[in-house]
Amino acid sequence: MSENETGALETALAAKKASASCATASLDVRNAALCAMAAALRENTEDILAANGRDMEAAGERGTAAPLLDRLELTGARIEQMACGLESLAALPDPLGAVQDARTLDSGVELKRVSVPMGVVAMVYEARPNVTADAAGICVKSGNAVILRGGSMAFHSNLCLARILHDAAAGAGMPRNCILYVRTRDRSATDDLLHMRGIVDLLIPRGGAGLIDHCVEEATVPVIETGVGNCHLYVHGPADLAMARAIAVNAKTQRPGVCNAIESLLVDEQIAQPALSEILPALAERGVVFHCDETAARVAEQLGLDAVAATEEDWGREYLDLQISVRCVSGPEEAIALVNRYGTRHSEAIVTEDEQAAQRFLASVDAAAVYWNASTRFTDGGEFGLGAEIGISTQKLHARGPFALEALTTSKYLLRGSGQVRG
Amino acid sequence: MSENETGALETALAAKKASASCATASLDVRNAALCAMAAALRENTEDILAANGRDMEAAGERGTAAPLLDRLELTGARIEQMACGLESLAALPDPLGAVQDARTLDSGVELKRVSVPMGVVAMVYEARPNVTADAAGICVKSGNAVILRGGSMAFHSNLCLARILHDAAAGAGMPRNCILYVRTRDRSATDDLLHMRGIVDLLIPRGGAGLIDHCVEEATVPVIETGVGNCHLYVHGPADLAMARAIAVNAKTQRPGVCNAIESLLVDEQIAQPALSEILPALAERGVVFHCDETAARVAEQLGLDAVAATEEDWGREYLDLQISVRCVSGPEEAIALVNRYGTRHSEAIVTEDEQAAQRFLASVDAAAVYWNASTRFTDGGEFGLGAEIGISTQKLHARGPFALEALTTSKYLLRGSGQVRG
Repeated sequence: MSENETGALETALAAKKASASCATASLDVRNAALCAMAAALRENTEDILAANGRDMEAAGERGTAAPLLDRLELTGARIEQMACGLESLAALPDPLGAVQDARTLDSGVELKRVSVPMGVVAMVYEARPNVTADAAGICVKSGNAVILRGGSMAFHSNLCLARILHDAAAGAGMPRNCILYVRTRDRSATDDLLHMRGIVDLLIPRGGAGLIDHCVEEATVPVIETGVGNCHLYVHGPADLAMARAIAVNAKTQRPGVCNAIESLLVDEQIAQPALSEILPALAERGVVFHCDETAARVAEQLGLDAVAATEEDWGREYLDLQISVRCVSGPEEAIALVNRYGTRHSEAIVTEDEQAAQRFLASVDAAAVYWNASTRFTDGGEFGLGAEIGISTQKLHARGPFALEALTTSKYLLRGSGQVRG
Repeated sequence: MSENETGALETALAAKKASASCATASLDVRNAALCAMAAALRENTEDILAANGRDMEAAGERGTAAPLLDRLELTGARIEQMACGLESLAALPDPLGAVQDARTLDSGVELKRVSVPMGVVAMVYEARPNVTADAAGICVKSGNAVILRGGSMAFHSNLCLARILHDAAAGAGMPRNCILYVRTRDRSATDDLLHMRGIVDLLIPRGGAGLIDHCVEEATVPVIETGVGNCHLYVHGPADLAMARAIAVNAKTQRPGVCNAIESLLVDEQIAQPALSEILPALAERGVVFHCDETAARVAEQLGLDAVAATEEDWGREYLDLQISVRCVSGPEEAIALVNRYGTRHSEAIVTEDEQAAQRFLASVDAAAVYWNASTRFTDGGEFGLGAEIGISTQKLHARGPFALEALTTSKYLLRGSGQVRG
């Protein structure tokens, strides 16, 4: 580390110290801080763009691919979006102090269970610098101190954003150091964060499968796994085929690079011919490449469409691209088994007019969100009405599916007695 | 492994396969299984005692200490207790299928969020064989498949109990293999369980600090940390000293070996003389040894009580014994700082008549349960009215404090549309 750098431990200890005061900051102060952070981003747009320019230049020189450059780039409009995001957080209800339970115990002790902040939240993410503002805002609103650790590619952008947000929050009355960035490019800093039991109360990785796997495998601190989506669409027996086509097109092609897009199409054998004749041409028109089992390949050939033979690996692949696996199944039982075998517990859909089969699919598929006659693309905090989404959890502990402010809180039992002891 | 043994992976895959049917078993079937399990324990008391006899004999030959032998030993009465525990589980309300949210999205898609089982729960525990029945029962009630992995010392007892429970549950209509025991003494089996991402949805360690630390450090599967308790009692300024004495005696001496017993007494300097004169003799009468700071040691000396000088290590020690650290503080600020520094986020108490100081303590102490004028010994699932307690969580993710059936569930979004796609 060079002289101006600050390592993970030093950063984390400062955040830990700040967390006690973050937890008791009033809603007014937290909301004022969010508005001040938004204003500061707008006021410092030029500085942010200059810092981002340094990152963009360095990335360009290294021959970074265009989609990554696009994720890295900040513009006036993107900075304005971050500012608006912070202001919308200020408008959301307080996630803290909610009374989840209140009872008088047999002993006469009065028990209350209330929502309180996690404490110290670490956010580890990749290229997009907007996560810096989003994560800082969500943690301020929920009374947590946050340790930010973004991708090395966006180092100057993130550092500049974090400094502006830190100063604005402190200026509005939040404790200093409620927003801290790990000021080093040293790669070991991320691993340091993963092992800070007793300091980091929750770590959330946001990024590709590599980053998330690494965090889940290595961490000794609690983690929420925000995962990959190998999502399926299953078309069963008495299905409205026009509906199946519309959902397949939407779920596969509207935004193929996102986790709630489908990667596999399952169709009942008995309706393979009519169903695939309806769906495949519409996907092909939009440039989708098919990885087919034998039956599906035969139908594709009859339709004059290209198809490659699916490999075993294809059934578990998250293409994140205009590609899809297509497979014929004997019925709901096989479809459910395949979804539970190859799926990533994210979003799964059935299209059918058969209520019994649909209910069975809803009950037996093990995923965060299961759809009947709708597109998997709806799995999203905004669409679900949760307010600011932090990510989509594919684990079952604490938060499942799209999660927001509430997931950054825990509970605390407060007990008031008049001298009671246990008998 | 010898021929009759079954390793962790084989066991886990069988549990995973069973978990889908466990999740859809009706409440009637689950409750009938619990009653059948209770009846089977009673019917097979002799077999259980014989198996336990083998473990007791082997443990005796190895010179195992008396308290451990006591934890290991089963009697007719203890088997009856296990049976009654299973029957009380049958009487509890269903933790599954609770509708946590129901809304129609802007698109017209109907969203419901319901409680569902975790899937596969692994329980890793030490000597007490009653955990085998408790854990099996809790998992049957909550629709989970369970993998049991008890201490090597109780191997024959656990194996016998697990076989009886497995057969009884299956006989009552639960899927075969909803209750499985890792049938090997091979020590690596526990580590295998810790790394079964995608198979084990939740792992709960129950036992000493060594076991829990090992699980938390090594696991790549989600874990609930059931932790140690370095609990404090803080006596502040205008306190009812008779109340403080009664609470100190109860919290320290009623059951010194449990996690919600206190290990440290903090007293305001200004009232050190009267407070300690009230409290220390009552503790000394019950055989408590004092580890004192200088001021407290002086008062103890004046009272003619023995005291050893506290070391830095003592402030963080969970004695689990008739020993206590005693320290004088300048006021609430120092007390809160000490509790947050040395405490293990379990249970903490203040005794005072000063409401403002009490509220500050309740708000600023970072622990699962914070008490004002009551004993920390109340931190317990039964006392809190939660029904069957699984453990007391000292982490903040998913479950905090005493946790029960609800913690073995997660949620699932069920969405019903009529062909909606995302715009």
